[in-house]
Amino acid sequence: MRNAIPNIVTAVNLVLGMFAIIFTLQGDFAYAAFFVVAAMVADGLDGRVARYFGVSSDFGKELDSLCDLVSFGVAPAIMAYAYMLKDFSGGALIAAAFATCGALRLARFNVNTGTVKGYFMGLPIPAAGCVIATFILIGIKPSGWIFALMVAVFAYLMISTVRYPDFKGKEGEPIRIIPVIITLLVGAYILYLNLTFASILFVPFFAFALFGILNTIFGLFDGRSVQ
Amino acid sequence: MRNAIPNIVTAVNLVLGMFAIIFTLQGDFAYAAFFVVAAMVADGLDGRVARYFGVSSDFGKELDSLCDLVSFGVAPAIMAYAYMLKDFSGGALIAAAFATCGALRLARFNVNTGTVKGYFMGLPIPAAGCVIATFILIGIKPSGWIFALMVAVFAYLMISTVRYPDFKGKEGEPIRIIPVIITLLVGAYILYLNLTFASILFVPFFAFALFGILNTIFGLFDGRSVQ
Repeated sequence: MRNAIPNIVTAVNLVLGMFAIIFTLQGDFAYAAFFVVAAMVADGLDGRVARYFGVSSDFGKELDSLCDLVSFGVAPAIMAYAYMLKDFSGGALIAAAFATCGALRLARFNVNTGTVKGYFMGLPIPAAGCVIATFILIGIKPSGWIFALMVAVFAYLMISTVRYPDFKGKEGEPIRIIPVIITLLVGAYILYLNLTFASILFVPFFAFALFGILNTIFGLFDGRSVQ
Repeated sequence: MRNAIPNIVTAVNLVLGMFAIIFTLQGDFAYAAFFVVAAMVADGLDGRVARYFGVSSDFGKELDSLCDLVSFGVAPAIMAYAYMLKDFSGGALIAAAFATCGALRLARFNVNTGTVKGYFMGLPIPAAGCVIATFILIGIKPSGWIFALMVAVFAYLMISTVRYPDFKGKEGEPIRIIPVIITLLVGAYILYLNLTFASILFVPFFAFALFGILNTIFGLFDGRSVQ
C-alpha cells in the first residue's frame, strides 16, 4: 500500500488532465484551465510523496512521464485548438506539434536522467502546459497568427537547449541578476495591464519561461554556464 | 538521420492520435476512428523500422510509450466520452479510468521488459484503443450502462493478468485449439449480424481481446502456461 500512494497521486494528475480535455470538449475553458493547474499541483506532489515514503521506483517515473504528457501536452494543445487554433489554417498541426514536442521533451529527459544535473534542458512540460492553459483562462484573444506563434514558441522551448533552473541542485546553472530583474519587470507590467485571478496564475509560468530564455542568452556572455 | 527515422514514425503515431481527438471535438467519429487505426499502423511500423535500420534506442522506446498513451488511451477514451459516456453519470470518470489503465499498462510493460517473455501480460493498449474506436465507427448505440461497462472491461483487461500471444516469441504462451474455435465462431457471427467496413475493422481487435480471455481460462486447466 505504501508503494502505491505516490502512484495514486500520479494517476490523479492524469485523471485531472482527462477532465481538462473533457471540459474543453464542452467549451468550458475556465474549468479546463483549472484542471491543468490542479494536475500540476498533483504532479508536484507525487515525487515528494514518493521520497517521503522512501518508495521512488522506475515504475513511478514511467507513469509520471505518461501522465505529464496527457495533462501538460495533450490537454493544453486541445484547449489551444478549441480556443483559437481551429480557425487558423494548419492549427491542428500546431496543436499536434505542441503535444509532440512535449513527448520528445519527456523521452529525452527520461533517457538523460542522471547525466545532466543542476538544471533542466528545455522548458519543463508542466510549465509549458500551464502557460498555455492559464493564458486561455485570461480570455484575451490575440490575432490568430500571434496565438499560433505563441503555441509554437512554447512547443519549441520544450525541445530547445534553453536552460531552466530546477531549484533543487546545489551546483545548478547560475541565476543571473539582470535576467531576474527584467523578468520581474515584465511580470509586474503584465499584472499592471491585467490584474485578475487568471493573470496571477499565468504570470509565474510565463515568467519562468521568459527567465530561462534571458538567463541562457546572458550566460552566452559570462562563461559561467554549467557544462 | 538514420537514427531519427523510426522516431519520426513514432511521432506520426502521436500526431494521428491528436487528430483523432480533434475530430472527436468536431463530432466526427468516423475520421477520429480512422486516425486511431492509422496510428496503430504507424505504431506497428516504428519498431520494425528501428530494427531494420539497427537503431533501436531507449529514447525510441520511451517515445513509443508516450505516443501510444495518447493514440490508444486518451483518444479512444475521449471518443467514448463524446459518443455515449457524456450522457452517463460518472462517464467522465470511466473515460479517465480507461486512459489511466492504459498508462498503468505502459508503465508496467516498460519496467518489466526483459523479464516476461513470449506473451503480453494484459491486453496491449493499441488493441484496447482500437476495439473502442472501431466499435464507435460501427455506430451502434447500446444502452448507456452497457457501453460504460464495455469501456470499463477493456480498461480492466489492460491491467489484468490475462495473457496475450505476442506472435514473436518461439516459446510463448501456447495457443489452445478450443479458444481459437470459439473466437472464430464469435467473430464470424458478429460479421454475419453486421457486415460493414467498420465491423471488418472491429472484429480482429475484438477477437484478439476475446481470445486472450478464453485462452487464459482454458490454460488454468491444462497446466501448460508459460511461467
